[in-house]
Amino acid sequence: MQESHNNFNFNVLKRGPGSSRLGLLTTPHGTVNTPAFIFCATKAAMKSLTIEQLRAANTQIILSNTYHLMLQPGSEVIAKQGGLQKFTGWRGPMLTDSGGFQIFSLGSGNVADEIKGRRLVGNDKTLLSLTEEGAKFRSYVDGRIYMLTPEESIKIQRELGADLIVVLDECTPFHVDKSYTKASMQRSHRWALRSLKNYQEHDDGKQKLYGIVQGGVYPDLRRESVAFVNDNPFFGNAVGGSLGADKSQMYDIVALTMSMLNKQRPTHLLGIGGISDIFNGVLHGIDTFDCVHPTRIARHGGALVKPWNRNENSNREHINLRNSIYKLDQNPIESDCACMTCANYSRSYIHHLLKSEPALSFTLIAQHNAFFMNDLMHRIRTALQNDTFTELHQEWNYIETPLACEV
Amino acid sequence: MQESHNNFNFNVLKRGPGSSRLGLLTTPHGTVNTPAFIFCATKAAMKSLTIEQLRAANTQIILSNTYHLMLQPGSEVIAKQGGLQKFTGWRGPMLTDSGGFQIFSLGSGNVADEIKGRRLVGNDKTLLSLTEEGAKFRSYVDGRIYMLTPEESIKIQRELGADLIVVLDECTPFHVDKSYTKASMQRSHRWALRSLKNYQEHDDGKQKLYGIVQGGVYPDLRRESVAFVNDNPFFGNAVGGSLGADKSQMYDIVALTMSMLNKQRPTHLLGIGGISDIFNGVLHGIDTFDCVHPTRIARHGGALVKPWNRNENSNREHINLRNSIYKLDQNPIESDCACMTCANYSRSYIHHLLKSEPALSFTLIAQHNAFFMNDLMHRIRTALQNDTFTELHQEWNYIETPLACEV
Repeated sequence: MQESHNNFNFNVLKRGPGSSRLGLLTTPHGTVNTPAFIFCATKAAMKSLTIEQLRAANTQIILSNTYHLMLQPGSEVIAKQGGLQKFTGWRGPMLTDSGGFQIFSLGSGNVADEIKGRRLVGNDKTLLSLTEEGAKFRSYVDGRIYMLTPEESIKIQRELGADLIVVLDECTPFHVDKSYTKASMQRSHRWALRSLKNYQEHDDGKQKLYGIVQGGVYPDLRRESVAFVNDNPFFGNAVGGSLGADKSQMYDIVALTMSMLNKQRPTHLLGIGGISDIFNGVLHGIDTFDCVHPTRIARHGGALVKPWNRNENSNREHINLRNSIYKLDQNPIESDCACMTCANYSRSYIHHLLKSEPALSFTLIAQHNAFFMNDLMHRIRTALQNDTFTELHQEWNYIETPLACEV
Repeated sequence: MQESHNNFNFNVLKRGPGSSRLGLLTTPHGTVNTPAFIFCATKAAMKSLTIEQLRAANTQIILSNTYHLMLQPGSEVIAKQGGLQKFTGWRGPMLTDSGGFQIFSLGSGNVADEIKGRRLVGNDKTLLSLTEEGAKFRSYVDGRIYMLTPEESIKIQRELGADLIVVLDECTPFHVDKSYTKASMQRSHRWALRSLKNYQEHDDGKQKLYGIVQGGVYPDLRRESVAFVNDNPFFGNAVGGSLGADKSQMYDIVALTMSMLNKQRPTHLLGIGGISDIFNGVLHGIDTFDCVHPTRIARHGGALVKPWNRNENSNREHINLRNSIYKLDQNPIESDCACMTCANYSRSYIHHLLKSEPALSFTLIAQHNAFFMNDLMHRIRTALQNDTFTELHQEWNYIETPLACEV
C-alpha cells in the first residue's frame, strides 16, 4: 500500500465505497491530503487570486501549464529563479502538464472543426505539423516557431521544477475516428517512453513522472493504454484524452479505466472538476482533479453553492450574482461559508462590483470558489474517514454539471 | 486647539516647521492619524485591491465618489444596507465628495476643450446645463437625466453615510477667465450655504461637513473664498478648484490659501497625491490628501519607490516594471519594504504577470503602492513627532512628480 520514492510517497490511508480511498501524497514541497483538487495557475498565477488568497482558501496544490510558460516568460527565466515554487511565491506542492493538451486544443481552430472531425493542421492554426518527432507550432505570443518533442517537454518541466510532471501526449479530440485515435494513442505511448527515458536520465529525486492513459471512448483502446501505463515505472497515473460526449459516457470510461489501472499509484483525472464528476471520480479511485472551473465561472459572476444554498428551480452548482434578484440581497454568497468573501461582503455588494469594478468582483467570487472546492474535498475526505461517503454523495447530488474543462 | 463635535474631534497634537502639524481626527468609525492619505474607493471599491488587502497595507481612511454611486448602484441601495462602511466591508473612517468634480470634469469633453477655455455644455457632453439650481447631466450608465443640486448632493451623501462629507461646488477648469471663475466661485458659495442648511436640518451627529475654498489661480478670489469658508460653521476645510498650470503656481496657491484659512479645522487638499506635493502640503498645514495615483500607476506597471531605490538617471517617484531590465530581476520592488508584495514576489515575476496575467500584477503593485503611501505618511508623522521633518523632506526630495489627479 506504500511506494517510497526518496522525498515522494503515496500512502492509501483508508478505503471507502467502490474504489474510493483516503490518501496522503508526499512531495519535497509538502503533503497533499487526497482526494484533492489541484488549482490551475496556468501562467504561473491563478486568475484573480494572489498566492496569499489561495493559501487562505486552504489550497494544498496547484498546477501550471508548460505550453504557456515555455512561450512566456520561458522556462529558462523560471529556472534561473529556482523554479516555479520560488517564482510564484507558492512554495508548496505543484504539478506541470506536458504542453500537449494546449497545443492540440488551442492549436485546433474552433469547436466546429473538432465536431466535424477535420484534422487540425492548416494555415490559420497555431499547430503547424504533428510528426513522430513531436509537434511543431507557432507561438501565440510572438509568432516564433517551436518544436515540442517528448524530450523537450520533460526538459522544460525539469526547468520549471514542479514536483509532479507528466509525459507528452497527443490529446485526441472527441470526434476523430477509432483508427486515428488508435494511431495517436500508440504514438503517445512511444512519446511516453521517450519522456520516461529522458526523465530517468536526469532524475535527481526532485520530480516524479505521471503516465497518461489515452484511448478515447473505445474500451479496447483504453485497455491497451492502461496496460501500457501499468507496465512502465511511472510514479503516478493520469486519465486523459477524450472522455466522451456526455456524462454517462465519461462515467463509463472512467469506471472502465480505473477498474484496470494500477491501484498503488496516485491517480489524476485530467481537466475534470464538476462537483458530481468529482464524486463519481472519487468513487472510482481518482485521487486528484484539476479544472479552471472555479475561477472561470467567477469571471461570469458564478459563485459555487452547496446544494441547500442553491436557487430553487435550479440544479446548477452555482448562483449567478449578475442576476438582478441579488441587487438588494444582504446575505453573503453562503451564510454557512467561512471564506474571506462570505465573512465580509454581501451578494448585493458583489452584484454592484460585477457592474462597477469587475476585476475586484472576480477576485471576491474566485476567493469563495477556491475555498468552496477545498472545503468540498475536505468534506469528502472526512466522510471517507468516518464511513459516511455514500450519505455525503446523496446529499450533494446535483443534476447539471459542466462536462469538462479547458485551459 | 480642540473642537468637539459629538463623536467627532480634531486635535492638533504638535506643530512642526512652517504650518505643519501632527493631528488626530476622530470619527464614529475610528481615528485617523494626520497627516494622512485618503485612498480612492471611487465606486465603493478600490481598483485592484480588496478591503483586506487595503487594511493589510495599514490604510486608515478611504473615500468614495457620490457621482459614481448615485448612478450605480444608487444611494438608496447603499442606504438600505446601512451605508458605505457596511456595504464595502471597510467599516473604518470614510469621506465622500459632493459629485461636483466628476460632473464638471467627466462632463467637460476633452482636455483640449479645457485648454481652449470652451464652455462645457453641448450635445456630446454628459453635462447638460448648469444653473443656479444645480447641474443637470446625463448618466453614463443608462442615459437617464439627473439634476444634482446642493440639497440633493447632501441627501445622497447622507444616504451613503460616510463620516466626512463635502459641500457641492463647481470645480472650475484651469483656463476659464477670471470673471467666470469669480461668478462660479460665488455660485459655489451660495451652493455651500444651501449644502450647509440641508446638512444642519438633518444633522444627527453622524456626519461632519467640509467647506471648499475655490477661487482658481486668483489671489483676491482665494482670499474671498477663504473668508467665506472661515465665516461659516464647517467642521473641516477643503482646498479645491484649479490650482494652476504648474507646481510652482500650485505651491503658491496652497501657501496663500493655507496662510489665511482657519487653523482649528482639519484641512483636506483635494486630488493631490504626488510625493513632493504631499511634503509641500504638509509644510503649509494640510492634514489629508487624496489621489487615485497609487492604483492608477499600478495599472501601468508603476511601482512607487523611495528615493534611494529609484533608478539611476530618473527623478520619477516610481519604477516601471514593464521595462525589460526587470525580466530577470529577482529582487522585490523594494528590498526594504514590509508589504505583502515585497515579502513574496520578485520584480521578474511581476514583469511576467504584466504580460501574462495583468489583473493580478495590478493587484500586487497596488498592494505595494498603498503600503508605500501609508508608510510615507507614517514617516512624515514620525518626523513631526521627532522634530526631523526638514531632514525627511530633504531626503525625499524628488524633482518630477505628477501635478494632480483625476477620478
